[in-house]
Amino acid sequence: MRFLVVNVNTTESMTAAIGAAARAVAAPGTEIVALTPFVGAESVEGNVESYLAAIAVLDRVLAYDGPYDAVIQAGFGEHGREGLQELLDVPVVDITEAAAQLAMLLGHRYSVVTTLDRTVPLIEDRLLLAGLMSRCASVRASGLSVLELEESPERTVQVIAAQARRAVQEDRAEVIVLGCGGMAGLAEAVHDATGGAPVVEGVTAAVKLAESLVSLGLSTSKMRTYAPARPKRIRHWPLHQHLR
Amino acid sequence: MRFLVVNVNTTESMTAAIGAAARAVAAPGTEIVALTPFVGAESVEGNVESYLAAIAVLDRVLAYDGPYDAVIQAGFGEHGREGLQELLDVPVVDITEAAAQLAMLLGHRYSVVTTLDRTVPLIEDRLLLAGLMSRCASVRASGLSVLELEESPERTVQVIAAQARRAVQEDRAEVIVLGCGGMAGLAEAVHDATGGAPVVEGVTAAVKLAESLVSLGLSTSKMRTYAPARPKRIRHWPLHQHLR
Amino acid sequence: MRFLVVNVNTTESMTAAIGAAARAVAAPGTEIVALTPFVGAESVEGNVESYLAAIAVLDRVLAYDGPYDAVIQAGFGEHGREGLQELLDVPVVDITEAAAQLAMLLGHRYSVVTTLDRTVPLIEDRLLLAGLMSRCASVRASGLSVLELEESPERTVQVIAAQARRAVQEDRAEVIVLGCGGMAGLAEAVHDATGGAPVVEGVTAAVKLAESLVSLGLSTSKMRTYAPARPKRIRHWPLHQHLR
Amino acid sequence: MRFLVVNVNTTESMTAAIGAAARAVAAPGTEIVALTPFVGAESVEGNVESYLAAIAVLDRVLAYDGPYDAVIQAGFGEHGREGLQELLDVPVVDITEAAAQLAMLLGHRYSVVTTLDRTVPLIEDRLLLAGLMSRCASVRASGLSVLELEESPERTVQVIAAQARRAVQEDRAEVIVLGCGGMAGLAEAVHDATGGAPVVEGVTAAVKLAESLVSLGLSTSKMRTYAPARPKRIRHWPLHQHLR
Amino acid sequence: MRFLVVNVNTTESMTAAIGAAARAVAAPGTEIVALTPFVGAESVEGNVESYLAAIAVLDRVLAYDGPYDAVIQAGFGEHGREGLQELLDVPVVDITEAAAQLAMLLGHRYSVVTTLDRTVPLIEDRLLLAGLMSRCASVRASGLSVLELEESPERTVQVIAAQARRAVQEDRAEVIVLGCGGMAGLAEAVHDATGGAPVVEGVTAAVKLAESLVSLGLSTSKMRTYAPARPKRIRHWPLHQHLR
Amino acid sequence: MRFLVVNVNTTESMTAAIGAAARAVAAPGTEIVALTPFVGAESVEGNVESYLAAIAVLDRVLAYDGPYDAVIQAGFGEHGREGLQELLDVPVVDITEAAAQLAMLLGHRYSVVTTLDRTVPLIEDRLLLAGLMSRCASVRASGLSVLELEESPERTVQVIAAQARRAVQEDRAEVIVLGCGGMAGLAEAVHDATGGAPVVEGVTAAVKLAESLVSLGLSTSKMRTYAPARPKRIRHWPLHQHLR
Repeated sequence: MRFLVVNVNTTESMTAAIGAAARAVAAPGTEIVALTPFVGAESVEGNVESYLAAIAVLDRVLAYDGPYDAVIQAGFGEHGREGLQELLDVPVVDITEAAAQLAMLLGHRYSVVTTLDRTVPLIEDRLLLAGLMSRCASVRASGLSVLELEESPERTVQVIAAQARRAVQEDRAEVIVLGCGGMAGLAEAVHDATGGAPVVEGVTAAVKLAESLVSLGLSTSKMRTYAPARPKRIRHWPLHQHLR
Repeated sequence: MRFLVVNVNTTESMTAAIGAAARAVAAPGTEIVALTPFVGAESVEGNVESYLAAIAVLDRVLAYDGPYDAVIQAGFGEHGREGLQELLDVPVVDITEAAAQLAMLLGHRYSVVTTLDRTVPLIEDRLLLAGLMSRCASVRASGLSVLELEESPERTVQVIAAQARRAVQEDRAEVIVLGCGGMAGLAEAVHDATGGAPVVEGVTAAVKLAESLVSLGLSTSKMRTYAPARPKRIRHWPLHQHLR
Repeated sequence: MRFLVVNVNTTESMTAAIGAAARAVAAPGTEIVALTPFVGAESVEGNVESYLAAIAVLDRVLAYDGPYDAVIQAGFGEHGREGLQELLDVPVVDITEAAAQLAMLLGHRYSVVTTLDRTVPLIEDRLLLAGLMSRCASVRASGLSVLELEESPERTVQVIAAQARRAVQEDRAEVIVLGCGGMAGLAEAVHDATGGAPVVEGVTAAVKLAESLVSLGLSTSKMRTYAPARPKRIRHWPLHQHLR
Repeated sequence: MRFLVVNVNTTESMTAAIGAAARAVAAPGTEIVALTPFVGAESVEGNVESYLAAIAVLDRVLAYDGPYDAVIQAGFGEHGREGLQELLDVPVVDITEAAAQLAMLLGHRYSVVTTLDRTVPLIEDRLLLAGLMSRCASVRASGLSVLELEESPERTVQVIAAQARRAVQEDRAEVIVLGCGGMAGLAEAVHDATGGAPVVEGVTAAVKLAESLVSLGLSTSKMRTYAPARPKRIRHWPLHQHLR
Repeated sequence: MRFLVVNVNTTESMTAAIGAAARAVAAPGTEIVALTPFVGAESVEGNVESYLAAIAVLDRVLAYDGPYDAVIQAGFGEHGREGLQELLDVPVVDITEAAAQLAMLLGHRYSVVTTLDRTVPLIEDRLLLAGLMSRCASVRASGLSVLELEESPERTVQVIAAQARRAVQEDRAEVIVLGCGGMAGLAEAVHDATGGAPVVEGVTAAVKLAESLVSLGLSTSKMRTYAPARPKRIRHWPLHQHLR
Repeated sequence: MRFLVVNVNTTESMTAAIGAAARAVAAPGTEIVALTPFVGAESVEGNVESYLAAIAVLDRVLAYDGPYDAVIQAGFGEHGREGLQELLDVPVVDITEAAAQLAMLLGHRYSVVTTLDRTVPLIEDRLLLAGLMSRCASVRASGLSVLELEESPERTVQVIAAQARRAVQEDRAEVIVLGCGGMAGLAEAVHDATGGAPVVEGVTAAVKLAESLVSLGLSTSKMRTYAPARPKRIRHWPLHQHLR
């Protein structure tokens, strides 16, 4: 099976890293195609950027020429999954929800550790809409921006691990979710720092859930919310056909 | 004061109707500028169209040249308000939330009567995020599309009024919210059909709430969620500068 | 239009201050009539006093001779709004709910800063009943009584501002609601102390919401909860006609 | 021990009936003193009447001369219990909460069957505040007023039983709570009509809970919400000393 | 009336202590029969032990030969009450729920102070299922195991009282629930340590609630969830007849 | 990898069917070992039977001699998953939670269609504890017992499909979960009967989620709730070593 794993930002090196993380866990026979949107911010850390990413991901998928079996939206706490579900017949998995679901199988409560303080409410809102908030102990910010994560790996580990420890001790989390598509490499260090809490990362979780759905022959319900759109005139859509 | 009232779809006649509804209730001294986005669907009735509208509204506001005191997003149950709040220093009012708030001042529970069944979950999700769901008795669909609302005014009144009556009798609503920007003219008929329930319409509610905020000198908090975006490279944004 | 703004306590100087605050934001053409109940405590800071205020406000409105277009109940977190809604045909706005609603238009979460610790649960209960609790970050007490607020303005500002800062930093509030009718003059100092959080005050919020409802021709639903009372014998009611 | 059982309305025959119901289940050694307020409606079926009852019950208890061990507020879904808890050192039990608590010990979900449709939201609000709503399947109205309950006992049984049956079959209730102080005699008929659902009545439930608290030496916490009121000037209070 | 008070663990001295606590508050005429299960852990402090206790209590009750009027399950936060309700025609009271209910009659919010940290989620889950969580301020662990409670009474009082104080001051609890069947003797010390908060203990609360139900002629609804089990083959049940 | 799939009842033919369903979707290299407990009911349809199953499954796993990589508890809405999580170091997946999680990836709301009416509250309780209830539209009973499911396959399909249709049309479900381990063969017929709703079955869902967890190297957190039990004396445990 072939999965499109769509980055929400336009930084190609991140797309490559996300693709590599996905491939590292994909089953034999699962091909990962990592895509970068044509439109949007180099990193997504706020409401305008997140809404733009929602459209940019839809647009990028529409531009993809060839068959595929599932789409993974690789942005943590971002808008857009509902649009993909409406647009496509194949299963769609958002990394936020994938990570939260697996975390809920592993402990009584989980916490998310993310990047900037300003993204915490966005993540909380997405978990609320997904119906996955009642066992969320906290969403904690590290204070590092998406792009800073890669600048100093050592500091990144320290800062993320410190918040994970507080989540376990103060918020009573038993499982840690890494709240950014760019944190895939940190799982082991965070696991150790917390004294052994399971650490769930969204891209890899989403690959396994997408494989699960595809192998069971399941895809998005078209009964109501995600029924195909009614035919109508849409100006300048899809974007990539109308951009200079 | 000058308010930008931004339609979420690209049908100019709807923009005109929304502008007229806003002007009909605006205080002396409130100037209404009704805007149509450059991008998006002729009517918004689903997830892709709603996400596209979110970006299209942001884009249209960025293209507006001149001062203004508040922005009203005139789409019921649509995405995007958070982006405007982050982008702008002036107050932003979404018609969904404006209508629900005023309805909550008027009765113990309120119901929304909207267009198509497929838009019900979108409205429920927006009310949930806004924290305005606990006194919502129901969101009911009339089965009429946005564009059908204008085709046969008589049928429209009948169908909407029938759902409003059921909301009062079966769902125990005491107030009716008209769940579409294009329903502004139906209030009196629905009021009569329900035997006297107050009927709140979003565009007019939003004008009064925006006037309230501006006259009190209040605007969006920039403390966290809606702080100005960090400077970064964004490809093809704003859209109107990059479209062919 | 003429609004009755009814103080919940029997301290005339407070009624004067509330009336002045209301007048300061009223639109041209809005006349503010500030009323003091005939019955009740000099300041309302607990359950018995609050229940007594509920009845005292109803009683005071019944004693008012002349037309009016709306009633504002000027007590933060107090009982009684439902009674006024049942009794009257004109719109009724409670300052607690008015402030919370406007705060919800301005940020992701809001906190209330009030007087004594013992009034916190009363405010929480009123917000819960009003369906406005899910985005409330906290209700914080300053430890100052209602009457102490005026004794030392400097200390008042310091103490209230300290709690507002903690609400923003510890509870993740983005907007501050001043939780007492007597705090109208503190908005600017609290705004500055928090580094710029919007500060909403109930009396002024309520004036604008009442103007909004009246200008839209909306009033309380009489469909069920607030239908006119059935005719029956009521002993010693209204109180002012039976007091020595 | 001596319990004051205070009727919320001013109909003496109802007070007598309530007193008799209480005495029928009181333990040997429990003396029931049934009191009628000096102020208020002949029957309480709405918001003004309920708020007035809250004060009238407080006033009546203050007028009682002699020792007592607990106070029971005998109005279903009425305001006021918090005031009594603040005012008194002895335990206070509200019949709404007492009935709901015992019902929750007897089945997975319970329904309340009450009098008029307009009182349903009042009962729901009181259960919500008491934290007893999550296992409430429904609050159903019979359409009979408080005073009609006694007019035609046969019709009363039929109408209440019909709603109880629907609660069991349609709302999935397993226990029925009789939602009016004047329904004490209907338990057996409703039990039979539902095919055997336990039927809980508030006055009798409250007597047993009050006995439980007193015999365990427990009374209202004075730590915060119900701490004794601060000394202050209160005009015309208590009412009975100031009425003509 | 005769009550079976069934310990959840197999330590006979605890059964004796529980029985004594129950007898100390039982009404004249209430006979307490304290039973120890044949199966299970010497103390119950985790999920396996709790599930085993659920079955062991059912098994022990089945082995009891003679009439009884109610059953009390004397384990705090343990599984099993639903099974007893299904199995028996007499009322069943769980000490967790009994304590929480009485606590809710005494203050705005209550906290539970229990033994080990690992049992906190079990207690939270039981309160959630019972619909008694919304007014629970916190469940706090003392760090003492069930068996350590008795080792050093002085230390036990100190440690439990310290957590109770923090519950009142930090979590805003107004009432303390002792979260272990073996804490019956600590009530007075904890009351004093908190400066006067009411302290509710589960075994004694359950005795009074069971007396309340029996004296009102109420027992478990057999309408759905707790209807008698369908006849079927069950291997090795009840356990005591099949154990070597 | 090797998974133990443990039936909750003692009917061997059901174990065989569950094992076959699991094998049908297992990845190459996943070995399914289907186990029947030594203790318990031939079918589990109530509280006593469910609690007994919880212990019987634990006991059966303890008796299994050999390595394994995950355990699946194959009972819908049954107790016990927490015990397995505490007992074992490998991942544990409950079929109720697995099915609900996958359903939530496929539509806005899901409904469960199960066997007898009496099991509905058990399923609701398990979903509530798992934090998966907020997007559950309904749990519907077919009225067929577990053992009747196999008696007349035609009738079974008709009855289940009828409830699934009502879930979609009346309860607004978009996805159907088959609420019994013995319904694995009905998915296609129910899919067709609803006009195309995705149908999720628990055993197959659990196999894929267990494979996901194992391949990601994730297992139950041992930080608090599911930490290894403290060493202590447990009478007659495990059961199979003590049964005659």
